[in-house]
Amino acid sequence: MSKDNTKKKLEKLGKDLVNQIGNKINPHVEVPIRALSNIHFNKQKRMLEMKSAKSKRFFFNVAHVRKFVQTTEAAAVAKELLEADKHLSLRQTFYKIKRTIPGTNINIVDEQSESNEAIEDLELITGSPREKLNINANKNGSVAGKVVVEDRGDTIDWSRLGSGGWAIPSNVENIKFKKVNAKFIIYMEKAAEWETLHEDRIWEKLNCIIMCSQGQATRGVRRLLKRLHDEFKLPVYVLVDGDPWGVYIYSVIKYGSISLAHMSDSLAIPSARLIGLTADDVEKYGLKRHLIKFKDIDKKRIKQISNYEWFRDNKPWQRQFTKWKKLNGKVELAALTANGLSFMSQTYLPEKIKKKEFLD
Amino acid sequence: MSKDNTKKKLEKLGKDLVNQIGNKINPHVEVPIRALSNIHFNKQKRMLEMKSAKSKRFFFNVAHVRKFVQTTEAAAVAKELLEADKHLSLRQTFYKIKRTIPGTNINIVDEQSESNEAIEDLELITGSPREKLNINANKNGSVAGKVVVEDRGDTIDWSRLGSGGWAIPSNVENIKFKKVNAKFIIYMEKAAEWETLHEDRIWEKLNCIIMCSQGQATRGVRRLLKRLHDEFKLPVYVLVDGDPWGVYIYSVIKYGSISLAHMSDSLAIPSARLIGLTADDVEKYGLKRHLIKFKDIDKKRIKQISNYEWFRDNKPWQRQFTKWKKLNGKVELAALTANGLSFMSQTYLPEKIKKKEFLD
Repeated sequence: MSKDNTKKKLEKLGKDLVNQIGNKINPHVEVPIRALSNIHFNKQKRMLEMKSAKSKRFFFNVAHVRKFVQTTEAAAVAKELLEADKHLSLRQTFYKIKRTIPGTNINIVDEQSESNEAIEDLELITGSPREKLNINANKNGSVAGKVVVEDRGDTIDWSRLGSGGWAIPSNVENIKFKKVNAKFIIYMEKAAEWETLHEDRIWEKLNCIIMCSQGQATRGVRRLLKRLHDEFKLPVYVLVDGDPWGVYIYSVIKYGSISLAHMSDSLAIPSARLIGLTADDVEKYGLKRHLIKFKDIDKKRIKQISNYEWFRDNKPWQRQFTKWKKLNGKVELAALTANGLSFMSQTYLPEKIKKKEFLD
Repeated sequence: MSKDNTKKKLEKLGKDLVNQIGNKINPHVEVPIRALSNIHFNKQKRMLEMKSAKSKRFFFNVAHVRKFVQTTEAAAVAKELLEADKHLSLRQTFYKIKRTIPGTNINIVDEQSESNEAIEDLELITGSPREKLNINANKNGSVAGKVVVEDRGDTIDWSRLGSGGWAIPSNVENIKFKKVNAKFIIYMEKAAEWETLHEDRIWEKLNCIIMCSQGQATRGVRRLLKRLHDEFKLPVYVLVDGDPWGVYIYSVIKYGSISLAHMSDSLAIPSARLIGLTADDVEKYGLKRHLIKFKDIDKKRIKQISNYEWFRDNKPWQRQFTKWKKLNGKVELAALTANGLSFMSQTYLPEKIKKKEFLD
């Protein structure tokens, strides 16, 4: 059981500290260094990951003690949560940790950034994503498809949930997949497009799963994508607005992000592909009249992204970036509506999937 | 059927215009004026509403023709949607309406603000909220409780959907309530607190429905609250952060908002009450150490809100505002976690409900 495994790691952390004290060693924890200098792009695995630099954090060290206490406090809260079978959000965990040390006027944490960092350190120390420490990210997003899951004793059929779909929980670690009848997954950045595709029952017609959050994919969504991808070998297609922000959403799902590089193994999906919108789509589907002129910030962002190591030597992507720069404007998914109410589900997506027109 | 009713109103709009043309009358529509001067607080009904001032908008009038065409175009799109049984988001509707008038270089709409206004005008002309015109707002939010609904042919039991709950659709007009076993509804502004209360199965223990979106309630959420309130006489309790922004969320749910004053009858819930967080809670539940000092913008906002007509003569609320000003800080719902993992579901809410400690 992964839960017991995480609890064991937390207990080991505590026992190691007790042993250090027993042996009159300055109590310390070893934490991989979370800094840009310790992150690299692994070309073989095709994902961002952490390098091996670690630092020791000591209790008897004025510069270390605050972080040392915060990390052990976070470990104590995680253990309590696992034992009580309860979950907290990052914000709630901050309040749970925040308290004044008796006899002093010092709080263990003053800002949420401190408890967040302690939790990230704990992820690194235990190797468990914070979801397995029962600390949840934001909840957002919906899913539909011919999938049956079991969660908290309920059996939930994703194909029989009306117009709303299943609300994706912030934590999907304990969900059991009972039946998965789908050939691929489409993740889209907008709930409006999800509702359109769901209304057209595209998941039934194309035998797929459709999933959305709003903007950047939440961790719950990313873990759900990752689990379905790993456990059922389902390809993941990403559908985003045709702009640098959409490309970045795709980039994070596929390669991971710098801030969560230490979690790439449980979050990144290197084989994920972009289904749209591409710069080629603009001409092909008559979307030129819907171009929204790039602002300086868009131009700056597209330049940044096109220089990312994982895009830099990718010819098809460089062709896209050049084309976007020439178009000098972005196109939203919603613009496809101008081509017909069901254009996306009846023409755009089926054509792309049939012709395997993906960007990798 | 409300759907047929809306369609008839749209058809009447078209027939009236055709008749005007046949009778050689300058084609026109009559639209209630959407301006602050035409909005007032109805003390009897306890909601914001529109006064009766109307304006005529003519086709043969250089100053009117653009808006006239936009409104009739929006009506045509709504009719198409109702006939096709499809829905569009506001953004998608913008793209659907946006096209160049043949033989000119003029677009029917250039900005979404134009199509949005045309749709709002259409709400006023037909008296139907845009959800009944099949034009949807943002989708967001989750719900749980002992309720069974029928939606698009599916039977959905809100008590058997695991940790995620049902994803609230943007449009809840066609949902049929098959079974509603609840004494009240708690709406909260944060998904994290919803997950905590859902994990503790508070809806089972207190026999209620729990609902959230994120921040300001979406129209889908407000319509769902309103329908459950109207059709099953369920009291609505609002649970928000202890700050002016939370109070405003409550104010909108209860009294309506200025921008949607014309829709108050189908959105506002004048009997809704605030269950927390109140300024009194801060002392009562030892939350003083979690006060986050007001910024200038918070102080300005609390002053504005306390001067709203519907709060101005409300003594219990004025007492709250005075107390908040004295506390000079806000308290978040998440802070209750510091009092124990299940403090909210086991102590805070049951006590409040038992003692009927609400602000009205």
